[in-house]
Amino acid sequence: MRLPISEEKVFKDPVHNYIHVQDDIIWRLIDTPEFQRLRRVRQLGTSYMTFHGAEHSRFSHSLGVYEITRRIISQFERRGYSDWPAEERQVALCAALLHDLGHGPFSHSIEEAFEMNHEDWTCRILLGDTCVNKVLLELGADFPERVASVIRKTYDKPIVMNLVTSPLDADRMDYLLRDAYYTGVNYGTIDIDRILRMLRPHRDRIVVKESGMHAVEDYLMSRYQMYWQVYFHPVTRSSEIILRQIFRRAKELYEAGYAFRFMIEPLPALFEGSLTVQEYLRLDEALIQTAFLQWTSESDPLLSEICGRFIHRKLYKYIEIDTGNPETIDAVRQAFRDAGLDPAYDLEIDFPTDLPYDKFHSGMPLNEKQILLLDRHDQLREISEVSDIVRSISGIHKGRNYLYYPEERVEPLLDRMPAEIADLFRRQG
Amino acid sequence: MRLPISEEKVFKDPVHNYIHVQDDIIWRLIDTPEFQRLRRVRQLGTSYMTFHGAEHSRFSHSLGVYEITRRIISQFERRGYSDWPAEERQVALCAALLHDLGHGPFSHSIEEAFEMNHEDWTCRILLGDTCVNKVLLELGADFPERVASVIRKTYDKPIVMNLVTSPLDADRMDYLLRDAYYTGVNYGTIDIDRILRMLRPHRDRIVVKESGMHAVEDYLMSRYQMYWQVYFHPVTRSSEIILRQIFRRAKELYEAGYAFRFMIEPLPALFEGSLTVQEYLRLDEALIQTAFLQWTSESDPLLSEICGRFIHRKLYKYIEIDTGNPETIDAVRQAFRDAGLDPAYDLEIDFPTDLPYDKFHSGMPLNEKQILLLDRHDQLREISEVSDIVRSISGIHKGRNYLYYPEERVEPLLDRMPAEIADLFRRQG
Amino acid sequence: MRLPISEEKVFKDPVHNYIHVQDDIIWRLIDTPEFQRLRRVRQLGTSYMTFHGAEHSRFSHSLGVYEITRRIISQFERRGYSDWPAEERQVALCAALLHDLGHGPFSHSIEEAFEMNHEDWTCRILLGDTCVNKVLLELGADFPERVASVIRKTYDKPIVMNLVTSPLDADRMDYLLRDAYYTGVNYGTIDIDRILRMLRPHRDRIVVKESGMHAVEDYLMSRYQMYWQVYFHPVTRSSEIILRQIFRRAKELYEAGYAFRFMIEPLPALFEGSLTVQEYLRLDEALIQTAFLQWTSESDPLLSEICGRFIHRKLYKYIEIDTGNPETIDAVRQAFRDAGLDPAYDLEIDFPTDLPYDKFHSGMPLNEKQILLLDRHDQLREISEVSDIVRSISGIHKGRNYLYYPEERVEPLLDRMPAEIADLFRRQG
Amino acid sequence: MRLPISEEKVFKDPVHNYIHVQDDIIWRLIDTPEFQRLRRVRQLGTSYMTFHGAEHSRFSHSLGVYEITRRIISQFERRGYSDWPAEERQVALCAALLHDLGHGPFSHSIEEAFEMNHEDWTCRILLGDTCVNKVLLELGADFPERVASVIRKTYDKPIVMNLVTSPLDADRMDYLLRDAYYTGVNYGTIDIDRILRMLRPHRDRIVVKESGMHAVEDYLMSRYQMYWQVYFHPVTRSSEIILRQIFRRAKELYEAGYAFRFMIEPLPALFEGSLTVQEYLRLDEALIQTAFLQWTSESDPLLSEICGRFIHRKLYKYIEIDTGNPETIDAVRQAFRDAGLDPAYDLEIDFPTDLPYDKFHSGMPLNEKQILLLDRHDQLREISEVSDIVRSISGIHKGRNYLYYPEERVEPLLDRMPAEIADLFRRQG
Repeated sequence: MRLPISEEKVFKDPVHNYIHVQDDIIWRLIDTPEFQRLRRVRQLGTSYMTFHGAEHSRFSHSLGVYEITRRIISQFERRGYSDWPAEERQVALCAALLHDLGHGPFSHSIEEAFEMNHEDWTCRILLGDTCVNKVLLELGADFPERVASVIRKTYDKPIVMNLVTSPLDADRMDYLLRDAYYTGVNYGTIDIDRILRMLRPHRDRIVVKESGMHAVEDYLMSRYQMYWQVYFHPVTRSSEIILRQIFRRAKELYEAGYAFRFMIEPLPALFEGSLTVQEYLRLDEALIQTAFLQWTSESDPLLSEICGRFIHRKLYKYIEIDTGNPETIDAVRQAFRDAGLDPAYDLEIDFPTDLPYDKFHSGMPLNEKQILLLDRHDQLREISEVSDIVRSISGIHKGRNYLYYPEERVEPLLDRMPAEIADLFRRQG
Repeated sequence: MRLPISEEKVFKDPVHNYIHVQDDIIWRLIDTPEFQRLRRVRQLGTSYMTFHGAEHSRFSHSLGVYEITRRIISQFERRGYSDWPAEERQVALCAALLHDLGHGPFSHSIEEAFEMNHEDWTCRILLGDTCVNKVLLELGADFPERVASVIRKTYDKPIVMNLVTSPLDADRMDYLLRDAYYTGVNYGTIDIDRILRMLRPHRDRIVVKESGMHAVEDYLMSRYQMYWQVYFHPVTRSSEIILRQIFRRAKELYEAGYAFRFMIEPLPALFEGSLTVQEYLRLDEALIQTAFLQWTSESDPLLSEICGRFIHRKLYKYIEIDTGNPETIDAVRQAFRDAGLDPAYDLEIDFPTDLPYDKFHSGMPLNEKQILLLDRHDQLREISEVSDIVRSISGIHKGRNYLYYPEERVEPLLDRMPAEIADLFRRQG
Repeated sequence: MRLPISEEKVFKDPVHNYIHVQDDIIWRLIDTPEFQRLRRVRQLGTSYMTFHGAEHSRFSHSLGVYEITRRIISQFERRGYSDWPAEERQVALCAALLHDLGHGPFSHSIEEAFEMNHEDWTCRILLGDTCVNKVLLELGADFPERVASVIRKTYDKPIVMNLVTSPLDADRMDYLLRDAYYTGVNYGTIDIDRILRMLRPHRDRIVVKESGMHAVEDYLMSRYQMYWQVYFHPVTRSSEIILRQIFRRAKELYEAGYAFRFMIEPLPALFEGSLTVQEYLRLDEALIQTAFLQWTSESDPLLSEICGRFIHRKLYKYIEIDTGNPETIDAVRQAFRDAGLDPAYDLEIDFPTDLPYDKFHSGMPLNEKQILLLDRHDQLREISEVSDIVRSISGIHKGRNYLYYPEERVEPLLDRMPAEIADLFRRQG
Repeated sequence: MRLPISEEKVFKDPVHNYIHVQDDIIWRLIDTPEFQRLRRVRQLGTSYMTFHGAEHSRFSHSLGVYEITRRIISQFERRGYSDWPAEERQVALCAALLHDLGHGPFSHSIEEAFEMNHEDWTCRILLGDTCVNKVLLELGADFPERVASVIRKTYDKPIVMNLVTSPLDADRMDYLLRDAYYTGVNYGTIDIDRILRMLRPHRDRIVVKESGMHAVEDYLMSRYQMYWQVYFHPVTRSSEIILRQIFRRAKELYEAGYAFRFMIEPLPALFEGSLTVQEYLRLDEALIQTAFLQWTSESDPLLSEICGRFIHRKLYKYIEIDTGNPETIDAVRQAFRDAGLDPAYDLEIDFPTDLPYDKFHSGMPLNEKQILLLDRHDQLREISEVSDIVRSISGIHKGRNYLYYPEERVEPLLDRMPAEIADLFRRQG
């Protein structure tokens, strides 16, 4: 079913100007409680503590991913490319819109703390007793499962998965643009119109016309810059560390039978690892922030302190350390222990890492993690074979080790630590 | 105390590019729990339900107001204008930064529902036992009171109040730019650089050089458009109506001794009107949203329904009605009652109104609500005397009456209503 | 004939991002010498002397007008509106692309000085022995005449003319956006996407869906501001006055048989009013500027002086005078004469004027100069009946009289003039 | 002499919003005929034939370079950095403003064709009998020479030259931003505010605080992209090739005593290599375009043809050829000759090349072509030692060979050429 085309609806969007909804099913999926819940989950987790503008939600991003996918497919349809399976339009649009449906509050931290996976949750919501499931069922008894299998990457049409998940997919394009817009960091401004114009369905996958190569280079550079400027910013990592400590401490206390002054459903099920879909859908960032604010009054001094740190943004300080030297970290840990600190909470090591683009070894067969260029003779080449820039940067496996610590507790004790350890902290402090 | 100028700190901001912090006191005020709390209060309340991008907080806006004020004052200092009292710099900057400190969650609705006033709360926080108060005290025992009196508009330097609150103040300039940026509505893009360049301290107030007239016209038009396109958007009003209904119903139930399944401090004190400063500071939008989500499971069917409407964005529908005819509204109300509906919750009338610019009657003395132009002969004239555009629009007292109602309950009952009432709903429905 | 749609070509454009060429005829028209000539005619004449960024050509603007028209028509086609005559697509696109083909160098001034009209020239080029004519002929023997009759406003399909020329046409929309972009003046930033979305073919004309009213209000305000900030800027008018003086003086000298040291074809034919199409097409701004630069060495001191003023930007100074008082102007003229000045060259009066929007008298029948809104009941209303803002501003018939004069010659002679005249100049000087 | 600070003047600029003029000398230099002449020389030469928006002049760019320099110096002054010699402010500002004063029409091509150098001409204009010279003299008898020696890079204050000319100077920053703005290519959007904030005077040069490293990486990537997307675009190169052919042919004809139907001063002096400063200043792009348009009617068929190509944009076609194989080029040349073509005009080889950043060999002493980072311990490091990205790309010495040729003449003759040569043209044609 499709809205009459003259009745297209729009959402005003700062990144794409307008989000165009032309299919009735998209309109109704947006209107479900499960999709509306994404308004209460921030796109960039705790990044707003570093970039105060980054308060946008996964709701906005999901609409953006849908819109880019819609534009790609419309272009394929308008130009009549025979390699695009026209009957897959709705599966692809729904998968694009719903791919983040399973994200929990402060997603990366909560997943790490409780060993969950948002893609699993997306599939459970798609297939469970939910409004989203009901809307999808109207397009066929197997439709929810088709959408879920795109998410799971087991769908039998590889081109649909390649459209929705690839190194140059609508998800990445939207988040670069959107995160750049909301943080104010202008490195993410890619020429999306040009990239979209250059995409072609080609057999089982989406490739890029060779003349779009420079636009893809620019996209990969933007991605690299956004990782280092925004996603891996040490202040953001510091707040995520506090967040994981809170989750860890609360779970320890819960398991030890501690009597919380404030406890709220479904946190107990979260601690126990027994969340149902219905319970999971009640988890949002409002609930987490409310719990943390209440826990600032808990009697456990550690929980109370770290909750206060998160709520009032009193983050851990950090120093950079040499990545090549694991003994240093052990020595610091020992020095902390000797000085009476608790390395489990007073010292955190963080090693964010990302490859700007992973070309794999030459000689490997083409695979779905590569970006392929289509030349005028219809030959495919992996982009780093053609682009000097991409070849140059694809080998960079950059990363920095940071140590995070509570300044107030650690600095008075530096005198009790070995001089070379204390110096590490004093030089950068 | 001022940061060494070479140690200026910055915040990346999407609207002003960078927020420059040059005074140590500003840096430390931003770092207080009371100011950090503004991250958990949205700048535009429920507007995000209409414009999904409008998820920005009062924290961002407050930094923006500070930055604009800082730029104005720096310019006055750099140019050495003698009418600007240089010693007022810090009072003005602090008042600019802190002017919204007392805003509660979903501020306009909560103020209306519980008869509170955010400026009172700002002053209570400035003067109470808070971290903000402690930081301000370092600049002098009377410093908190000086800042509060600017907020209260009783300070003895009128030019400082005029800088912080006037029809062309930093507050309005920041919110036009910021709300335009986050909603994506481009009507709010004013030429702030030009306006700032044209501002002059003149005796007791801030005036505009005559050659800046067109920039001010444009600013007033932007303001007008933003009111009608964004601030008064009927979908936003609809969500605010639901919000007020929830507050009203919860208070009724609380006063009637209803046993809430979920209740959280400091809501009882809010219902009782007995909030202390410490309690007030625990109120934020996370807490309100959490309460509402939990209340969707309350046994009171009305509370449960309207909380579900708010959380899942199932808003009331609306029709526009003739503003000149109060009997119509009475007739609708009666028809609702006769059909078995409850006009207290099933029917809401809303009449948003704003003047683009209020010039007051000619012949009135100049006052602080007017925008004054300074000509080359140092004469002041109220802007609508000079600008055809401003004169033309300043008489427009526009407004539209909307009736809001729960579609699912009302529409099946239209047949039982008088035909001319039912038609009102059917024609626009 | 149409390019295969998958072979669409694009031009990178700063205003519309990309100009999309989908019809072979458009591609070939752009490639004609007559269209390429528009690269050598600036869009804003002498405005670059006031706004140094405004160096863009009519070539850029013409592509922009074409692109907006293409977008409107594509939307009409996609939505299948029955009131749009699909077979008129190519006539409309060609007329949009070519509507400025007849503009000469510094068009407004040259037209005024030599009593020419660019629309006549456009038609002569369309119908004459030109490459443009040959390309058009391929679509039918009557095709050039069909395009010309749209320009002349005698075409028998009023909706095509209304699309190409109306108060809300592609021409005006492009020039507001483009002139704003190149001058850097941000008043021209209209929400073109929204306006385009709201346009509807309705019987014989293009109307606007009522929900687009605010976007149209904003467009009219932008237009008003651009007129006063950019198009009527007194510095620009001053340079146009010099330009007209040069044309006038050169013609006088030519007619008097003066022996020019430098003369170049086709200037003699311009002076004689006998330009052929082929000669007209050799006129461009490079030729005019070259002549003026060479003429700075002419023996006629007046011609040499005013050419130097234009080339080296030594413009006339200006003062504003009361518009209500024609005797003042006569008195100034007399005073100039008495002081030994030549009012024909030493004094110019300029009275730019524009209506932001001309609603005509109420009670008049609807006409093509009005903007009509289409409400949900398919009723048309002229916009000023519905919009308070448009009604308020449509009565403003604003204008300012300026006197322009050569400061170096006039100021030393002010002492010889009556005190009240001299004062006029001294007060503003 | 400085304008009273409260009387600062501004130019509206699309790139920097406003250009602020605070020194009287700058105001008066802008007003000279020599500086105004830059309005008639395009910043990007023939790039407007590829990117129709790129019609901006060296006048705009020169103001931009001045503005960035002013901002850097103001910041140094405001922060009181002792390594910045405050007395050099005016020399630096004048050199920044005037550094492009000697650019001729279509500068790169004319310099190549006539073996001229724009920096020499800049110095001749600064020191010759010009208005610019007179204005500069007011600041001291040696002031013109001081400015000239900055241009020549012989000034005795290296930090001033480093500010005006370095891999990260105001010139490059302005042209990246400005050319990106006018072409519409968004790769040039660098975070100039951040780069400027990070610049520090350090002994004899300008260095970058280490925390600005990512902004510099982004700047170098932008530069790289702009070179390949814009400056080296083969369509632009094609038009430059035509341009050089015209200059070459006209000179040949002139030297052979050919009787031009149209000839204009100072072209003979240009051909003879005897231009005086006064003659040089009469050269602008209007004159060149006018000559070319007139020459389309010359009797020499080659001159007439290539002038028509330039004026009507009938450019040479191009194919890419293997850069590693000089014999191929020789073989093509021979095949052309054998087929009766003239390789001197019918075949042009072009090999544009640029290094994104040239780090030089490790172990070399620091020099002025490097970008140095200043860490928190006041140590300097060359950027490619610290930045993985810069190290990766600084080795890329990319370039592509293109062959350009007149399609109409060459293609009919391909059959007469050896098959492997003809194939080269047919495969890409």
